[in-house]
Amino acid sequence: MGTTKSDDYSETTVRVRYAETDQMGFAYYANYLVWFEVGRGAYCRQRGISYQEMEKKFATFLPVVDARCRYKRPLKYDQEVLVRTRISRFQRRGVTFEYQITDQGREVVYSRGLTRHIFTDGNGKPRSLPAELVPYFT
Amino acid sequence: MGTTKSDDYSETTVRVRYAETDQMGFAYYANYLVWFEVGRGAYCRQRGISYQEMEKKFATFLPVVDARCRYKRPLKYDQEVLVRTRISRFQRRGVTFEYQITDQGREVVYSRGLTRHIFTDGNGKPRSLPAELVPYFT
Amino acid sequence: MGTTKSDDYSETTVRVRYAETDQMGFAYYANYLVWFEVGRGAYCRQRGISYQEMEKKFATFLPVVDARCRYKRPLKYDQEVLVRTRISRFQRRGVTFEYQITDQGREVVYSRGLTRHIFTDGNGKPRSLPAELVPYFT
Amino acid sequence: MGTTKSDDYSETTVRVRYAETDQMGFAYYANYLVWFEVGRGAYCRQRGISYQEMEKKFATFLPVVDARCRYKRPLKYDQEVLVRTRISRFQRRGVTFEYQITDQGREVVYSRGLTRHIFTDGNGKPRSLPAELVPYFT
Repeated sequence: MGTTKSDDYSETTVRVRYAETDQMGFAYYANYLVWFEVGRGAYCRQRGISYQEMEKKFATFLPVVDARCRYKRPLKYDQEVLVRTRISRFQRRGVTFEYQITDQGREVVYSRGLTRHIFTDGNGKPRSLPAELVPYFT
Repeated sequence: MGTTKSDDYSETTVRVRYAETDQMGFAYYANYLVWFEVGRGAYCRQRGISYQEMEKKFATFLPVVDARCRYKRPLKYDQEVLVRTRISRFQRRGVTFEYQITDQGREVVYSRGLTRHIFTDGNGKPRSLPAELVPYFT
Repeated sequence: MGTTKSDDYSETTVRVRYAETDQMGFAYYANYLVWFEVGRGAYCRQRGISYQEMEKKFATFLPVVDARCRYKRPLKYDQEVLVRTRISRFQRRGVTFEYQITDQGREVVYSRGLTRHIFTDGNGKPRSLPAELVPYFT
Repeated sequence: MGTTKSDDYSETTVRVRYAETDQMGFAYYANYLVWFEVGRGAYCRQRGISYQEMEKKFATFLPVVDARCRYKRPLKYDQEVLVRTRISRFQRRGVTFEYQITDQGREVVYSRGLTRHIFTDGNGKPRSLPAELVPYFT
């Protein structure tokens, strides 16, 4: 995965849990943001950095300041989908991730979304991304 | 509450649960969409219609097609906040809710967001809002 | 509430969220443990100590080592229930909470459960409950 | 997987999500029941029957009547664990699943639990497991 570029999507699979459905019979809308987070974690891991390491070793946190999700088609229990994640914008003080939720063949798009993050230290104070971490985001 | 206008906010209180925090020490970002849903439920109830009744009696569902949330300040465990909800746009085929999450005095805004919904029948097919329900949304 | 005894239940209200339902049309089973946590928080608060304060001021955490829940009758969206919480056993090294989920009239029991906890410090090491906190648990 | 016996465990992998952690820095206790559900789903799928199909095609639901979980060691964000599931007891009117959450080498047990279920029809009325489904459970 080391050669994946920032304009490329990193991909990971999630399967809709029963817990994630609601009485309408489909996946509940807030869970998409959880899957986006799963996508972000996979993105980092595939680049060679773990989110846990960013927090523990570099005291760098990525709180979300803005989230958006469009719901194109409903998802059902047990359905297995791709969460596709890429960075659409990177600055020293923040980063924007973009997401697609698609079928395994990347033909049907169930959802698109984005999250904007700032970088903070352990006390929630804004900071620049440490220089050692920049390569993972660009 | 029967005289509340559609440009007014309906209000309900939520207290941040331990389950809703994450290891950063604050409320996890997807939970805001859950609180927005709590706000929508309270909005309907305060207008005199229950969401449950819309589904069961009128076969009318309000799936979300777009959700957006801005995170202004983090929320902590056990913090009690207001979820303020209003309808910002209503059409026969859909409705947009707007939200604020504030402190009890409505002075500090923790989050703002919106959700756009379409009306569907029990099979997910778009429909107009039944005439009997229109007064509750306008 | 200062006179509530440890053999008495502390009570708080929760309303079933749409997020908490599943495609079977009832509240999903894991959420009962979340409501138990809401009950524990209310128990502490009604005794005059916040769980947050225990963690921050006394470096005392209450990780769960055992949880059990019996499901008597299903719960529906928007249903408002009482979460009744009491301490059934207290030792310097741990505590057991008991729960009932009932209707507002305490006539219908929807669920019963318990959670056993140990006391730990911030590093997860078992510890005795600080002497200042004992009165809140007995 | 067709030869897996009912005294054997079916296995699936879950990775702890950020959403599933809490401010104590570990996975929140209610999520274990969600992972158990993931284990049940994998168990059924590996036996050749999907839970979805049971509901849709056979009008057979498996509501939980009792759940229990013991927490041996905490789980951290991004940790990947095995959810091991087996049926410990089967009767025409109900079934008990047993679970272990272990590391990938099955050496460290993080949690053990069980869930007891009854079989119901779509209206929540108890029923016997349809004869066609019995082979999947025995």
